[in-house]
Amino acid sequence: MTSCTICNLIEGEIIWSDKIIRVVLLDHQDYKGYCRVELISHTKEMTDLDEALQFKVMRCVFKVEEVLKKIFSPEKINLASLGNKTPHIHWHVIPRFKEDPHFPNSHWGEKLREGMHQAISAKEKNDLIQLLSQSLGQ
Amino acid sequence: MTSCTICNLIEGEIIWSDKIIRVVLLDHQDYKGYCRVELISHTKEMTDLDEALQFKVMRCVFKVEEVLKKIFSPEKINLASLGNKTPHIHWHVIPRFKEDPHFPNSHWGEKLREGMHQAISAKEKNDLIQLLSQSLGQ
Repeated sequence: MTSCTICNLIEGEIIWSDKIIRVVLLDHQDYKGYCRVELISHTKEMTDLDEALQFKVMRCVFKVEEVLKKIFSPEKINLASLGNKTPHIHWHVIPRFKEDPHFPNSHWGEKLREGMHQAISAKEKNDLIQLLSQSLGQ
Repeated sequence: MTSCTICNLIEGEIIWSDKIIRVVLLDHQDYKGYCRVELISHTKEMTDLDEALQFKVMRCVFKVEEVLKKIFSPEKINLASLGNKTPHIHWHVIPRFKEDPHFPNSHWGEKLREGMHQAISAKEKNDLIQLLSQSLGQ
């Protein structure tokens, strides 16, 4: 059995998926709407994929960005594919707000204040699922 | 005059460019081969671009990743478009090594050790420029 946490564990709720990619909502009270776009197959780097698949992954990342902008009107969207601890392609798509714990630092940087402590509402989650499904297909 | 530092300042050496995108090498002794792919026009989010331009930017990011892997054989490549302080599209393309100051933390996270203190060599820089030019065109 692999030791990869992305292979073994869904760390949130799958809000969209096909056979290749899933979008996971991390229900984080300090980072409302924080999603991860995860490749289902265990692959390390974006350049280990062929160009069609690279673009399929990025299209999904950008659709998530678009929907998050629409619902949450964040100050900025942060996109990152790091994977130093978990070398399995997953994109962080993080809506950032001036009042979030780290802004304008990176989400991984120094914490500057207490956070928002406000989970995503049922309506926001429903809108997210609906709009993603409209953008990316069922 | 704009106050945007990406519009006003080249923080490194331009090692490839066309009219839309430039690749800047940040000659960082702790992060050998750290590049930034910068959109030349002042645009905030990837989803402010049309799909053709999104893919053009990402194609460049992935070509840089490919070339950095070839030259430096890093442990991992980190890709990030944050822009909380400078909301002008720029992608960090960072070769990561087990012995770098933050690994496996993010480059923006807690520093765990002293760095490599080793600038990119003239040969490595030349290879980078040559291979990028072959991949992306003159």
